[in-house]
Amino acid sequence: MSVGWLDADDDAAALGSEMHRLVERLYPICRSITGQGVRDTLAVLRGLVPLEVHEVPSGTVVFDWTVPKEWNVREAWIRDPQGRTVVDLRQLNLHVVSYSTPVRTRLSLAELRPHLHSLPDRPQWVPYRTTYYNETWGFCLSHEQLLALEEGEYEVCIDATLADGHLTYGELVLPGERDDEVLVSCHVCHPSLCNDNLSGIAVATHLARLLAARSRRYTYRFLFIPGTIGSITWLSMNEARAARIRHGLVLTCIGDPGGMTYKRSRRGDAEIDRAAVHVLSHGGGPWQVRDFSPYGYDERQYCSPGFNLPVGNLARTPHDRYPENHTSADNLDFVKPEYLGDTYSKYWEVFYVLENNTRYLNTNPKCEPQLGKRGLYGAFGGKKDANRYEVAMFWVLNYSDGHHTLLDIAEKSGFRFDVIRETATTLLEHGLLKEAGASVVSLPSNEIYQSVQTGALDAAMTSSTSLISFRLEEVAKHLTTGRGKAYWFMLEPLLMSREVFEKLPKDQQAIIMQVGAELEKFAVEAAKADDQAVAEVYKKAGAKVYDLSAATVKKWQDIARATAWKDFAAKSESCARLLKAAEKTL
Amino acid sequence: MSVGWLDADDDAAALGSEMHRLVERLYPICRSITGQGVRDTLAVLRGLVPLEVHEVPSGTVVFDWTVPKEWNVREAWIRDPQGRTVVDLRQLNLHVVSYSTPVRTRLSLAELRPHLHSLPDRPQWVPYRTTYYNETWGFCLSHEQLLALEEGEYEVCIDATLADGHLTYGELVLPGERDDEVLVSCHVCHPSLCNDNLSGIAVATHLARLLAARSRRYTYRFLFIPGTIGSITWLSMNEARAARIRHGLVLTCIGDPGGMTYKRSRRGDAEIDRAAVHVLSHGGGPWQVRDFSPYGYDERQYCSPGFNLPVGNLARTPHDRYPENHTSADNLDFVKPEYLGDTYSKYWEVFYVLENNTRYLNTNPKCEPQLGKRGLYGAFGGKKDANRYEVAMFWVLNYSDGHHTLLDIAEKSGFRFDVIRETATTLLEHGLLKEAGASVVSLPSNEIYQSVQTGALDAAMTSSTSLISFRLEEVAKHLTTGRGKAYWFMLEPLLMSREVFEKLPKDQQAIIMQVGAELEKFAVEAAKADDQAVAEVYKKAGAKVYDLSAATVKKWQDIARATAWKDFAAKSESCARLLKAAEKTL
Amino acid sequence: MSVGWLDADDDAAALGSEMHRLVERLYPICRSITGQGVRDTLAVLRGLVPLEVHEVPSGTVVFDWTVPKEWNVREAWIRDPQGRTVVDLRQLNLHVVSYSTPVRTRLSLAELRPHLHSLPDRPQWVPYRTTYYNETWGFCLSHEQLLALEEGEYEVCIDATLADGHLTYGELVLPGERDDEVLVSCHVCHPSLCNDNLSGIAVATHLARLLAARSRRYTYRFLFIPGTIGSITWLSMNEARAARIRHGLVLTCIGDPGGMTYKRSRRGDAEIDRAAVHVLSHGGGPWQVRDFSPYGYDERQYCSPGFNLPVGNLARTPHDRYPENHTSADNLDFVKPEYLGDTYSKYWEVFYVLENNTRYLNTNPKCEPQLGKRGLYGAFGGKKDANRYEVAMFWVLNYSDGHHTLLDIAEKSGFRFDVIRETATTLLEHGLLKEAGASVVSLPSNEIYQSVQTGALDAAMTSSTSLISFRLEEVAKHLTTGRGKAYWFMLEPLLMSREVFEKLPKDQQAIIMQVGAELEKFAVEAAKADDQAVAEVYKKAGAKVYDLSAATVKKWQDIARATAWKDFAAKSESCARLLKAAEKTL
Repeated sequence: MSVGWLDADDDAAALGSEMHRLVERLYPICRSITGQGVRDTLAVLRGLVPLEVHEVPSGTVVFDWTVPKEWNVREAWIRDPQGRTVVDLRQLNLHVVSYSTPVRTRLSLAELRPHLHSLPDRPQWVPYRTTYYNETWGFCLSHEQLLALEEGEYEVCIDATLADGHLTYGELVLPGERDDEVLVSCHVCHPSLCNDNLSGIAVATHLARLLAARSRRYTYRFLFIPGTIGSITWLSMNEARAARIRHGLVLTCIGDPGGMTYKRSRRGDAEIDRAAVHVLSHGGGPWQVRDFSPYGYDERQYCSPGFNLPVGNLARTPHDRYPENHTSADNLDFVKPEYLGDTYSKYWEVFYVLENNTRYLNTNPKCEPQLGKRGLYGAFGGKKDANRYEVAMFWVLNYSDGHHTLLDIAEKSGFRFDVIRETATTLLEHGLLKEAGASVVSLPSNEIYQSVQTGALDAAMTSSTSLISFRLEEVAKHLTTGRGKAYWFMLEPLLMSREVFEKLPKDQQAIIMQVGAELEKFAVEAAKADDQAVAEVYKKAGAKVYDLSAATVKKWQDIARATAWKDFAAKSESCARLLKAAEKTL
Repeated sequence: MSVGWLDADDDAAALGSEMHRLVERLYPICRSITGQGVRDTLAVLRGLVPLEVHEVPSGTVVFDWTVPKEWNVREAWIRDPQGRTVVDLRQLNLHVVSYSTPVRTRLSLAELRPHLHSLPDRPQWVPYRTTYYNETWGFCLSHEQLLALEEGEYEVCIDATLADGHLTYGELVLPGERDDEVLVSCHVCHPSLCNDNLSGIAVATHLARLLAARSRRYTYRFLFIPGTIGSITWLSMNEARAARIRHGLVLTCIGDPGGMTYKRSRRGDAEIDRAAVHVLSHGGGPWQVRDFSPYGYDERQYCSPGFNLPVGNLARTPHDRYPENHTSADNLDFVKPEYLGDTYSKYWEVFYVLENNTRYLNTNPKCEPQLGKRGLYGAFGGKKDANRYEVAMFWVLNYSDGHHTLLDIAEKSGFRFDVIRETATTLLEHGLLKEAGASVVSLPSNEIYQSVQTGALDAAMTSSTSLISFRLEEVAKHLTTGRGKAYWFMLEPLLMSREVFEKLPKDQQAIIMQVGAELEKFAVEAAKADDQAVAEVYKKAGAKVYDLSAATVKKWQDIARATAWKDFAAKSESCARLLKAAEKTL
Repeated sequence: MSVGWLDADDDAAALGSEMHRLVERLYPICRSITGQGVRDTLAVLRGLVPLEVHEVPSGTVVFDWTVPKEWNVREAWIRDPQGRTVVDLRQLNLHVVSYSTPVRTRLSLAELRPHLHSLPDRPQWVPYRTTYYNETWGFCLSHEQLLALEEGEYEVCIDATLADGHLTYGELVLPGERDDEVLVSCHVCHPSLCNDNLSGIAVATHLARLLAARSRRYTYRFLFIPGTIGSITWLSMNEARAARIRHGLVLTCIGDPGGMTYKRSRRGDAEIDRAAVHVLSHGGGPWQVRDFSPYGYDERQYCSPGFNLPVGNLARTPHDRYPENHTSADNLDFVKPEYLGDTYSKYWEVFYVLENNTRYLNTNPKCEPQLGKRGLYGAFGGKKDANRYEVAMFWVLNYSDGHHTLLDIAEKSGFRFDVIRETATTLLEHGLLKEAGASVVSLPSNEIYQSVQTGALDAAMTSSTSLISFRLEEVAKHLTTGRGKAYWFMLEPLLMSREVFEKLPKDQQAIIMQVGAELEKFAVEAAKADDQAVAEVYKKAGAKVYDLSAATVKKWQDIARATAWKDFAAKSESCARLLKAAEKTL
């Protein structure tokens, strides 16, 4: 894994300035849920990251919704009775209600009034309004502007088109070692509003830019989509891919001066939830956690009951907690480079946790290993100020039992994840830990077929006979044969306790021995034949077939001799005898 | 369901006055655990609700107890050496120790003293004492009265009978849609004590009166019983019925000025516990919750380990927290109409929750449904003050996943239950929710018999052949046959993958095809024969047999065509082909 | 059980003085992890309890560790340029670094300096240092001493041997009714340090002394071992025994004036954890609980993931919370008799809980039993101040449902364990409770063999035929036969509902009856034969065989008639008839 913990604060600071410049560049573009504004926005981003741009035709049915007509606006203004332009889209994108139908008319103030939107309690701010699913038109203006309007005839113009076209969104996939995905989703549908949504776009773009340069365990999917209809459209067209999402975050409201806020996924205790809370709890600044609620941003769709994806929302001040939200006051001054940089580093740390949150096995689970002889421990015992690093080693060793992940250990111990992770790396290098990634399952041979088919099993070890008779070639891509070098075949004929055997009459004993001898001969020969046949069967079925080389077998024998065989022989005298007999056959 | 949330506060106030008048009417009656006082009390209640009165003979063994002799008292007094009556039952029912044995004698103050009970720390109050299981006699009087007694010879009279008779209790069952019961239990054994127990009797009676006028999902069972021995007697004689109790409350101490107190059932997290806590937490006034403890009122018996019924105790001030309890100070002034009315409304709200606490399924579980096109959403998006009702819709939609009840959703969202319930009703009307009452289970045909027998299954759909061969007619009351209109029979002969089939030698393929054809012919004919036979078999066994009408089948086809068939055909091309072939057979 | 709750505080006080005298006696001995000091220490303890002393040779491999060479020191001193002895082992054992290699040389102060250890922030205290696994030498002295050293040539002498020898530890096993063990572990490797470890040695010794005089449910194992290497050695050599440890405590730092501290076992909610927390929460003084952490004392080894034993650490002030730890200030003044006595009583109370924490069954689970008729209840009901004892009875009765232990009930009710336990004893004497120790399991006969083998089953009741055919004699030590007196054999031939039977044609009915009759005859005879054969089979296999005496059978019949038979007959008329028919066969 080379996604490392962020090195220094100045990195984040420099990135903060870059992100703010991106916000400045995107601010003047007039975005809505569809239209040229979104395309222009994605074009700017393509200068930084290789986004793919998708166009979904109007009218496409996406679950309970329909992709709407595309809206584009060229000009929008109000002229007062004196012919002065009192409201003008060219001055501020918020002045026109998004998705307004075209209009060009003259009308009295009384007739105009229902089409005007203002904020009486914030008289200098212009609100942001949309009318996506209700065909009408309107203007937004400051309450001071509104109060200054005199009686008389007004001329209004909204030169817009609302017509069949497309919904446009950007998507970037950074493939990782695994198909499992981390979803990073931000919305691109708001016009000149900086915190609620340009901050998300800027941070997501730069996260993508830097992640692209690292090797990754997970595949990262970045979505730049219009809010609500965009995530619904993507989910509707990518149901199978959605099932690959293991962790996800929705980005918005992340450039303001407030502390961090994490809103949990609907699952509440998903790994992403725990990773985000861990990062915030060690982050230094003020932070809070909120439980999932079914309103907010696109997590509403990702966490709808039919998907219930582990997607949270990592923000600074939640949209419902700062008055500037959805007004002209959410501008370039409200969002600051240092906050963008700080948020960036939090996201990066969350990814760091996800990338590195593995599970190890203590190779000396019985009592502590002796750290001193490996140079891992202070030479003089008895010191009262046992250093932090030593303490972290004990936590990692004690809880690396195959059940606890590194994040579990970080939570239990109170250490920051990176300390635990670095400690684990050191212990791994010293052979005191081993990977516990895959787990071994014992199951009857006749269940292998279905288990491989459903993905519950990635690989299986069984006899050549089983490999053939259960038709596992139908689900296998690779076969490693032991032909000529196999040690093992299942001793199936008859197994009984000596005690029972000796209680039998002599003649019965004799029959058993004789049948056993016959069966053994048959079984050994048949097994050997299958050892040869299996490669043929799998080759025919299209699987790649590998033979163990003599060198590999030798290497394995050397390891086995010092570990598994030794352990087995140590169990009892008869185990030792059995092993010795087996070794003679080599 | 027509048990609605209480409409207005004045309803509760008017009821409060009515209930207080009932308390006044019952106050003078001299009650004990048996005797004429209980009968007189129940007679008054029968003027309001159609109680059934039960009489259980003395000596009846009820679990570890025995129904005691019946006690009746006509007069009880003490005359001082001057012949003045200083203590008189006629003045206050508490003056005689309940279950005192008859006595008529003259004795010195010293001899009398052990029979006198007073409260030194509350010198003006008369205590309440009983001697149910210890044959003796006594008087209760204020400590001031006691101190005023001079030396000399006293005459005492208790003209009482303690003889074989009956234990009397009242019972009222209001049947509902379901056999499952809500138990409402109050005790009727206390003489002139208003909060501890007349308040319970009054509220229970009026709850019964109003519930009788509504349609009910649950069956309500009201018990007016003597404390302890009454609930033991009822449980002993109604073990099977007790198993039907799904929720229950014990009423007492509910007319005083204190805040509400809910004592949990022994289970601790039963639905009744959660409903009561929800109602109190939204009730406005002060409230507290106590865990179950094995002392208190009749919940002791309902929650004994052999029953462990989900019965809680919803009170105002607990009996051990107000000094007036079990004294003459628990009188008509202590209990007020407004508190009776307030308690009444809390009980009603708890019943409202129980009656309406169902589970729904979101019919659009993938992403949010579009509320706007259904007129359920404000026309202009982007408003910051999304109204409460809209928010409740999102909660109900997101959590109507078949697992969460409306009470779960109310708890999670913080909304009051009635808001959630009304929201759910609206969504149901718009087809965005559907009932998730029954759940569908898949189980092997050979387990149907036992599952129906044990009540785990209410209905089953299987082939005519299974209906016959598993002798399901023995446990069925109804059969709906598809004869002549059946689409379906189980394709049982042989199912194999084409890939496997094609690897077989030609001659083996031919045999398989031939046997399959023979089996198919046989199976189709046998299945058709069974379709005819099944009606006969079930009719003989006493079940009602119904045939699907052509109109019903047509209706079903129309629905299926637009839903299940369409979904199936959309899965893949071969699904579509298979469905087309099937439709040709219509 | 005769481990009773400690009777009076003065017992603990007297014990406190005795324990302090033991600390005084052990203080001058120069201990290390090996060597004569440990042997001398154990010799002193053997004067009080019959410890077994074990010697494990140097070089023995114990898991990842090796038993070190044995270290013994005769003298160790530093002479200043004037020839004055400025540091001397004879004055304080801490002056030499434990496990120092021998040295006799002259060197400058600058050369000596790296070998000197002091505590600058505690200039009058001498630190304690060891160098077990790093061959070097050193002296410890107070910082004041260090500062007073002048430039010049010093002479140093450490007359020590570090050579093959033994690791010495003491072990005492007090067998109980059960093989299950309570582990009591303290370390004996520290030289003159009173709280950190002499307090543990003193309390453990006296706990052993007093426990030896009582009958015990559990087996108690006391370990007096060097820290870390001692527990590792013991675990390595006693893996099978370790599996017998049901509860355990590590003793150290238990003579100081601080409040009690319990550090949970790694399991966190083991019975020992709950018992210790219960005792501390009712103990009066200040106390705290800490979660498990993988540093501290020998619980590190007992709770390593490969063992994960339920072993906690019950201390006063944790070692990392008092500055005197591992310095000369942890001396005879720091540890006081009253604190030793107080700690002792806490340990005793924990053992009391473990010894007595059983599970009972209420014999009247349906409703409360009538306590009054048994003299267990105040004669006059209605009193408000129901006494504590009565309240405890209700708790014990209500929760003695086979699931809750007495400790569960103590925790739920808030009563101290001994009150609950004494109440349970009273109820047991009155027949209101019965032991719920063993639990009855129903399992198929063919699973008995393995269940007995794995210890899941202690005894089984099955037919003679099953006893023989499943070869249970191979795992049985005892057989009780019912031959000649058996009532029971499994009615296996054919069981069908009368309804089904009557629907069959007459001829089929006849065949069934005839076959049934034949089978019955065969089965009865075969069963009788097996009843006779079974004793033979088991005797041959080495099991003890017992026959029921006529008296025993009679006794059982009498009990059965009044209980199980009566209950069965009361179920229905046909049950009654069946029982009557069965009784005729007696």
